[in-house]
Amino acid sequence: MSKAAKLSGFPEWLPQDRIIEERVLDLLKHTFELNGFAAVNVRAVEPLSILAKDGEIDKEIFTLGRLHSEGKERNPLGLHFDLTVPTARYVLENAGHLNFPFKRYSIQPVWRGERPQDGRFREFIQADIDVIGDEVLADHFEVEIPLVMVQAFDALRELGVPEAGIVANNRKLLEGFARGLGLDDVTSVLRAIDKLDKIGPEKVEELLIETAGADQTQAKQCLRLAEIESGTSAFAEDVIALGVEHPLLNEGIATLVALLDSANRLHPGAVKAQLKIARGLDYYTGTVYETFLKGHESLGSVASGGRYDALAKTDKKVYPGVGMSLGVSRLMSRLVGANRALTATRGVPTAVLVAVTAEDQRPEADQIATALRRRGIPVDVSPSADKFGKQIRFAERRGIPFVWFPSAETGSEVKDIRTGEQVSADPDLWAPPEEDIWPRVLRVDAE
Amino acid sequence: MSKAAKLSGFPEWLPQDRIIEERVLDLLKHTFELNGFAAVNVRAVEPLSILAKDGEIDKEIFTLGRLHSEGKERNPLGLHFDLTVPTARYVLENAGHLNFPFKRYSIQPVWRGERPQDGRFREFIQADIDVIGDEVLADHFEVEIPLVMVQAFDALRELGVPEAGIVANNRKLLEGFARGLGLDDVTSVLRAIDKLDKIGPEKVEELLIETAGADQTQAKQCLRLAEIESGTSAFAEDVIALGVEHPLLNEGIATLVALLDSANRLHPGAVKAQLKIARGLDYYTGTVYETFLKGHESLGSVASGGRYDALAKTDKKVYPGVGMSLGVSRLMSRLVGANRALTATRGVPTAVLVAVTAEDQRPEADQIATALRRRGIPVDVSPSADKFGKQIRFAERRGIPFVWFPSAETGSEVKDIRTGEQVSADPDLWAPPEEDIWPRVLRVDAE
Repeated sequence: MSKAAKLSGFPEWLPQDRIIEERVLDLLKHTFELNGFAAVNVRAVEPLSILAKDGEIDKEIFTLGRLHSEGKERNPLGLHFDLTVPTARYVLENAGHLNFPFKRYSIQPVWRGERPQDGRFREFIQADIDVIGDEVLADHFEVEIPLVMVQAFDALRELGVPEAGIVANNRKLLEGFARGLGLDDVTSVLRAIDKLDKIGPEKVEELLIETAGADQTQAKQCLRLAEIESGTSAFAEDVIALGVEHPLLNEGIATLVALLDSANRLHPGAVKAQLKIARGLDYYTGTVYETFLKGHESLGSVASGGRYDALAKTDKKVYPGVGMSLGVSRLMSRLVGANRALTATRGVPTAVLVAVTAEDQRPEADQIATALRRRGIPVDVSPSADKFGKQIRFAERRGIPFVWFPSAETGSEVKDIRTGEQVSADPDLWAPPEEDIWPRVLRVDAE
Repeated sequence: MSKAAKLSGFPEWLPQDRIIEERVLDLLKHTFELNGFAAVNVRAVEPLSILAKDGEIDKEIFTLGRLHSEGKERNPLGLHFDLTVPTARYVLENAGHLNFPFKRYSIQPVWRGERPQDGRFREFIQADIDVIGDEVLADHFEVEIPLVMVQAFDALRELGVPEAGIVANNRKLLEGFARGLGLDDVTSVLRAIDKLDKIGPEKVEELLIETAGADQTQAKQCLRLAEIESGTSAFAEDVIALGVEHPLLNEGIATLVALLDSANRLHPGAVKAQLKIARGLDYYTGTVYETFLKGHESLGSVASGGRYDALAKTDKKVYPGVGMSLGVSRLMSRLVGANRALTATRGVPTAVLVAVTAEDQRPEADQIATALRRRGIPVDVSPSADKFGKQIRFAERRGIPFVWFPSAETGSEVKDIRTGEQVSADPDLWAPPEEDIWPRVLRVDAE
């Protein structure tokens, strides 16, 4: 090892920032488990035949080879580009051992061979929750999934993460509206509406006419629908007022109304209906979601997903699913990046440094450290025997709040190096204040 | 997604076994942090120029390509095959931001393109601890590293993992002994001794004579050294009794004596000196370690490592390191494999299922669930409205211990479905017994 190499798109954090990331991951994990989601860890690797099914995404796949392999692999492999495809494969492979509806979360890296940009990486951590049904999956899971994400963002907000807002729509609502209007090329309607923010209403109207077979009246109706947004189920009246009728439209409205009503009971304002949200990918069949951080909308959605009626299928069976995927690395890029929002009180777990004044005193220092650790206090022993002043500077540089001075003659003393206060201490009794035991995460503006 | 594909060498666990793996990882993490090691997460990917430096290992590297790339990559990448190489690169890249000696741990997957066997995988999780110095690294870290691993295995043993024993040797001791005997081709001496268990003493003697330039007397002396093992520092007398002298030999003995003495203070019997341990790879320069699970010696070492004086280096600087790597997946293969040692009390986090007797009662059930979750209790709401008996069977199949029956008229009741006991309960007050809140890990034989 003799050369350093920065690789664009492969973020790595310094230890003090990894503390923040771990805290984020712990809060997510805890929230998901409180809601009954079981942890699943999938392998990083899938056969290309599994990964490359959805035409739109296969450009971004990292393929695997072996340095000294000769010729082609019989079963070529690639790195997964999301956690949905491997989860679908995992469900098929283990269906006989799982209980349905199967609620699982996964927090793992994924890889995409695309060009890195702000908030877009080539290796990044996703935190996914999904509910997968056996043949059927009740609509109320489309309500549950974003409400779990609301809880997750609430927990992150206590940490100092900016406020998040989830926007939702429903594919059945869009499809029913299109069909009710007499537009049967639903995919083209969705693709056109999906571009509203990028190209504006005039161009979307043109697209609807050119690609979806709409006349001007139909196109205008689509645009009116796409402009509807509301923080309550009142959006339904605006849709109905457009005068379009279709059974699917009613189903979509009902599910979205249930979502808004439940969300407003749990956390008023956290979820909004926004009928221009279409999500480009083809496979969604019910509610779709995106999530934006207030003040960081330019980052794009930090948690997206939806319902897909054929998440996994065999010749005999179909497994519908609904889920959302939170982009942990994208979030982290705003928490610890250029305009850092969070900081850790220190970059080491250590709360106490046991000083070593002479190398032959190390066994006594080790004993004190062992006694403190047994009581759950993270401790380090000074790496080199030195004067007290140097030991304190060693602790200061690392943000370790306490230095322990052993003394066989006069008894140990421990110093809070922030205040200078020094007290007698017994390693079987003394403990730092609760808030100093582990590093804490603080808002930069609250420091 | 329409096809399942088992991939040999890429282990995945069912949810109830992932609970065991997570418990193992939590205990490792906690032990490492109590000892002052900071978490570092490295990217999965390195330039091949970084990975392929050590000739011995490059056959096993998975290389990366892109599905639609044309021609050769300018900077070809591969997946890391261990956590040491990326950590060395991380240290060089971030040296200006790190405090030395830098104590870090990493718990991450690594990939090797080798043939899968019992306990050998192509994707597996390693848990590494290392201390890395700036130019210098005191010998006492060679004592600290295995003692941290002893603590980790002690913590795992409380979970039900079989007892572990660490065996240690010292490269300086071996090198000093060889040089003291007049054998200067130290690498060949080490390689021969390393084969003792595989090929037996006669063949090692032949190898020493053929490859290391030893005469029969020198070869016999090497074999006598290799046979020495002891649970205390008394091994030193046996070495000295062989009558070989060299300054390096003395240094090696002193470090190994310090390790045995410290280990016996903390945990008598956990570390043994075994002078045949050489570790094949070239770069170790001080203590070397291997770890075996009692009763599972055939699995090979589950935690290995050593000291390397040039872990990382630039033209101007050298960073010595000492570390050990614990094979989490290898360990897991014995904990949950054919002769399963551990089991989880359930495969879901859920402690309480809130029953739903009619679909229009779901909002009330959701409210109860929210109240319980706010108090840290993992709760699921029944996915479909059904009779009480079916709700209980739903919970039973998942191992959920409690079912909550809401009733607006008579007040809620909660049933422990293991005992049948049913009591009135208020979602703002009732809690399950502490031991039922989260799934526990049990020994199979203690069930």
